[in-house]
Amino acid sequence: MDLPASDRLARQLSFIVEIDRLKTVLRRTVLVDRSRNENSAEHSWHIAFAAVLLAEHADGAVEVARVVRMLLVHDVVEIDAGDTYAYDPAAHDDKEERERAAAARIFALLPEDQEREMWELWEEFEAGATLEARFANAVDRLMPMIHNYVTEGVAWQQHGVKSHQVLDRNHVIGDGAPDLWAYAERMIAAAVDKGYLAE
Amino acid sequence: MDLPASDRLARQLSFIVEIDRLKTVLRRTVLVDRSRNENSAEHSWHIAFAAVLLAEHADGAVEVARVVRMLLVHDVVEIDAGDTYAYDPAAHDDKEERERAAAARIFALLPEDQEREMWELWEEFEAGATLEARFANAVDRLMPMIHNYVTEGVAWQQHGVKSHQVLDRNHVIGDGAPDLWAYAERMIAAAVDKGYLAE
Repeated sequence: MDLPASDRLARQLSFIVEIDRLKTVLRRTVLVDRSRNENSAEHSWHIAFAAVLLAEHADGAVEVARVVRMLLVHDVVEIDAGDTYAYDPAAHDDKEERERAAAARIFALLPEDQEREMWELWEEFEAGATLEARFANAVDRLMPMIHNYVTEGVAWQQHGVKSHQVLDRNHVIGDGAPDLWAYAERMIAAAVDKGYLAE
Repeated sequence: MDLPASDRLARQLSFIVEIDRLKTVLRRTVLVDRSRNENSAEHSWHIAFAAVLLAEHADGAVEVARVVRMLLVHDVVEIDAGDTYAYDPAAHDDKEERERAAAARIFALLPEDQEREMWELWEEFEAGATLEARFANAVDRLMPMIHNYVTEGVAWQQHGVKSHQVLDRNHVIGDGAPDLWAYAERMIAAAVDKGYLAE
């Protein structure tokens, strides 16, 4: 943006324009109507909204506004680092390094106080230690399973995923939202029964 | 979802699955990289995030969490009613009726208390009377102008939009965020100067 503005507003807008690119980062998950793969921006909207609605299932009285902020920012690093598929262990080796470099570049577009806030939110989400981060991670893990279940396992099958991998990868849902993990376990069992997911 | 669950959780998940369809509702706005039109789900993520970052420019001390909730839900009615283009007066004639019918169907998927909350948020946004709704509307109007400006007016030109229409349509930004409207006025003037927007 080449228009006169205060330094703060100019920085805020440069970040806001930059993150438009998250709309072109594709995930392995397919939309419920199976028309195409999901992108990380619309995914972020979906889970932020889901977190608002499912907050009562968190493992304690969660500060929903903070969960939502974490979920709005949690995937922005993928603009540089790409989406790392949950079931690709090799890609996870250098995931943290790639994503920290991305965060450094992208968050630095903002005024310093907001740059710091974005780092705090993103690192809190990644560490998964607070109640809010555990719940945010639970919703982030639950949604792709729901997408898989309602599409009869399209993405699971495309990528040769097996039920023990889904259990291993997602049991952390139980740390943030025990009820939702109990539900997810029933979903995995039913997905195996119906042939959506390999044993 | 055909799995055993409490009635509340079953209703929450049916809504969450239903709103996936917002990802297939296309807007007139094009992405910053001009690769395609934007959809209403990724737009909702973008403006919710922008509202968090721009809150200091609101016309008073705004409750950001409420603004974000409003923006997460504000376009969900488009699943049934479609996106109504800002510069299409004919489509605006029955917009309210179409959108109210959509809200009634979609919000009713939720448990009653959450159905009520979604109605309240959506009606507050539409009425644009509270500080939070005025600011939410300001961000919702500002973003497509930014997209147009950085893409050299692609969507404005495609739809034959003129500068007086952009001014008429968007001056309400000033009610929610006077600084952002001052910025937007400079943007419109520069867009005319550069030939992105017809006089």
